[in-house]
Amino acid sequence: MSGGGGPAGRGTRRTGRRPGNPDTREAILDAARTLFAERGYDGASIRAVAATAGVDPALVHHYFGAKDRLFLAALDAPADPAAVIPQVTAGDPAGLGERLVRLFLTVWDSPAGAGAVALLRSSMTNDRTARMLRDFLVTQVLRRLLEHLDTDPAELSLRGSLVAGQLVGLAVTRYVLRLEPVASASPETLVAAVGPAVHRYLTGDLT
Amino acid sequence: MSGGGGPAGRGTRRTGRRPGNPDTREAILDAARTLFAERGYDGASIRAVAATAGVDPALVHHYFGAKDRLFLAALDAPADPAAVIPQVTAGDPAGLGERLVRLFLTVWDSPAGAGAVALLRSSMTNDRTARMLRDFLVTQVLRRLLEHLDTDPAELSLRGSLVAGQLVGLAVTRYVLRLEPVASASPETLVAAVGPAVHRYLTGDLT
Repeated sequence: MSGGGGPAGRGTRRTGRRPGNPDTREAILDAARTLFAERGYDGASIRAVAATAGVDPALVHHYFGAKDRLFLAALDAPADPAAVIPQVTAGDPAGLGERLVRLFLTVWDSPAGAGAVALLRSSMTNDRTARMLRDFLVTQVLRRLLEHLDTDPAELSLRGSLVAGQLVGLAVTRYVLRLEPVASASPETLVAAVGPAVHRYLTGDLT
Repeated sequence: MSGGGGPAGRGTRRTGRRPGNPDTREAILDAARTLFAERGYDGASIRAVAATAGVDPALVHHYFGAKDRLFLAALDAPADPAAVIPQVTAGDPAGLGERLVRLFLTVWDSPAGAGAVALLRSSMTNDRTARMLRDFLVTQVLRRLLEHLDTDPAELSLRGSLVAGQLVGLAVTRYVLRLEPVASASPETLVAAVGPAVHRYLTGDLT
């Protein structure tokens, strides 16, 4: 699964696009972090971020593109869900859970994973980071994943938060607590062990 | 399941036993935290804790009893696994996963749960606390749980760390990230949803 874990920052700081004024870029990111943390992803607009940073909204679009990309940059997300979730939803529906766990481990085991671990650690002690991580999971990952599933809409958010809980727990035991043998198990061992649990949360009977 | 979440501190600071010198008690706890963090649960002896605290080993036993109780006090654990794990292992083996999730939620939803959340948060940013939490899970919870199961000994540690990952993930989503609807779901909703996953980790085919 090479290419699965491209950094979310690409298309912003890592393209050939003119870097512009780094102070302006940082001011926009600071404003974005403040507003996303205070109002949530859905409640914070590009216009409000621009006003807080004291720049024109067109400049925010120039630097970051659409709101979801600004959000990923503000969060320093390790991967762009819009780019990688299709790898999970395409293919045999029976393999959905295993593909999601494999993708998750590919991103977190990659160099970008160190940033993900830092984000997870920070979210445990910082309510603003926790809110942003929660919004990231809901608006960027789970919505994209679940809109492809033929499930009762009333169950979607429960399924999504159960999947998030299992994957966050896998990340905590493997990368933070480093509980063996999960800490050093091969990805395929964990895909086989955890994939079916995730699959059931996505599509199985939960009652 | 009332009575499932008794604080681990009972038998030490909450009994009718004479409180003794609080400075001595704290000195022993400080020494215990240092040595458990440095050497792990199995590597730290009561004798070494006593030497570090500058007291006689008999005094450590007087205040805390056996090593596992000293460890629980040092960690300020929200429940004593020796007291509550039998509630999970007794009864119909088919209900093992559900009983474990129910017990877990009973402890974490109780007043003692605030201490558990604090411990979990701290373990994410403090390597010493992470080591103690890992040791707590392995030596106090998982060993006790798994010794009752008729499973291949070679698989026990993988099963244990998968169970820990699922339960830690449930705790992070419910109590730290507060991801809805898991954050406010009834315990029985979560028992039905997560119990089978935990049960499979304990007894099912993981390959």
